Amino acid sequence: MVIIKLTKRQEEIIELVKKNQPITSEKLAEKLSVTRAALRPDLAILTMTGILEARPKVGYLYSKRGGNSIIYDYIKEVKVAEIKTKPAVVTEDTTVYDAIVQLFLEDAGTIFVTNNGHLTGAVSRKDFLKIALGNTDIHKVPVGIIMTRMPNIVTVTDNDTAYEAAKKIIEHEVDSLPVIEKTVTEDGKDILKITGKVSKTNITKLFVKLGSGN
Amino acid sequence: MVIIKLTKRQEEIIELVKKNQPITSEKLAEKLSVTRAALRPDLAILTMTGILEARPKVGYLYSKRGGNSIIYDYIKEVKVAEIKTKPAVVTEDTTVYDAIVQLFLEDAGTIFVTNNGHLTGAVSRKDFLKIALGNTDIHKVPVGIIMTRMPNIVTVTDNDTAYEAAKKIIEHEVDSLPVIEKTVTEDGKDILKITGKVSKTNITKLFVKLGSGN
Repeated sequence: MVIIKLTKRQEEIIELVKKNQPITSEKLAEKLSVTRAALRPDLAILTMTGILEARPKVGYLYSKRGGNSIIYDYIKEVKVAEIKTKPAVVTEDTTVYDAIVQLFLEDAGTIFVTNNGHLTGAVSRKDFLKIALGNTDIHKVPVGIIMTRMPNIVTVTDNDTAYEAAKKIIEHEVDSLPVIEKTVTEDGKDILKITGKVSKTNITKLFVKLGSGN
Repeated sequence: MVIIKLTKRQEEIIELVKKNQPITSEKLAEKLSVTRAALRPDLAILTMTGILEARPKVGYLYSKRGGNSIIYDYIKEVKVAEIKTKPAVVTEDTTVYDAIVQLFLEDAGTIFVTNNGHLTGAVSRKDFLKIALGNTDIHKVPVGIIMTRMPNIVTVTDNDTAYEAAKKIIEHEVDSLPVIEKTVTEDGKDILKITGKVSKTNITKLFVKLGSGN
């Protein structure tokens, strides 16, 4: 997958096709005062990208899909495994207060909660703020009581794409997704191990990385 | 700017050039059992994208920059004006409690604070959480007392790119940037009007939009 900038002549060709379609390569060459052979690479690029459509015995047509429909395949190549970072994790019996302290210590947006190594819940800054304003005794109540509990947590795996993760974040209006790995215990129980998190911060960082060309 | 997927033959050409560089188009045609003319569009694309370099009388060389150095010009074309959304704004004399209520009502991550229409500060969920845990009487203390005050707030303008905004968000470790417009009052004072915000959510949404090809 590569990205190219169209040349001035290619842009001119597109304009000519838009105005005169269908138009043959002979006509295009004439209008641009070049040989047909000279146009061949440009026309190849414009048809490959789907900007123009070449119809045998008819000529070139401007394609409405414009070549941008394949545009962000690249974004879809980046995997969750490449952008996930260390999650802030506490156990269910941690007090709400201690969980908040952990949140600040790790500068996290969301705290994930486990029980015997199994992901059981999550609490966001917003949840904590609500609790802090209410009548809950945050020094006594364990985080397990106030957390959003599985299966009401949206998750991703290493093999999902960053794009899928971003989509889930937006659709479910959450700040962060746990990256999970399903394993089965000896007695046949599913265990959801948390191996990382993907947050809006991770996506924003990826965006910056892509934009800086790295 | 368009993005194309390389064809299998183009990938083959790249591999051949990598192994045999410098290599002439005659040699390439021979190895691929096609005519030189048939290769011309492929070679045009590969040199245009900067993947191959054509040296007269020498042949084709593989270019280390790989064609990806121009890859995210596109990301840099999107402007803040296109992705900004409505900010949650309160005035300096609003109590902390009411500001938090506003935060919840608008489901915002950051509250921006103004005084006579002039942007003077910002408070994040994290700041509010800290305050809520402390001894501050949030029903009495105005938000103007606890906010981060200008000029300690990072801002952007409509004409900045989404990329620049994302970079500022990451570098300054903030969730949201106010989009400002500088105007001058009749008596010559600068007024910073807030016209929107760009948050990690806006960047994540843009990422999803790019990935979905819209």
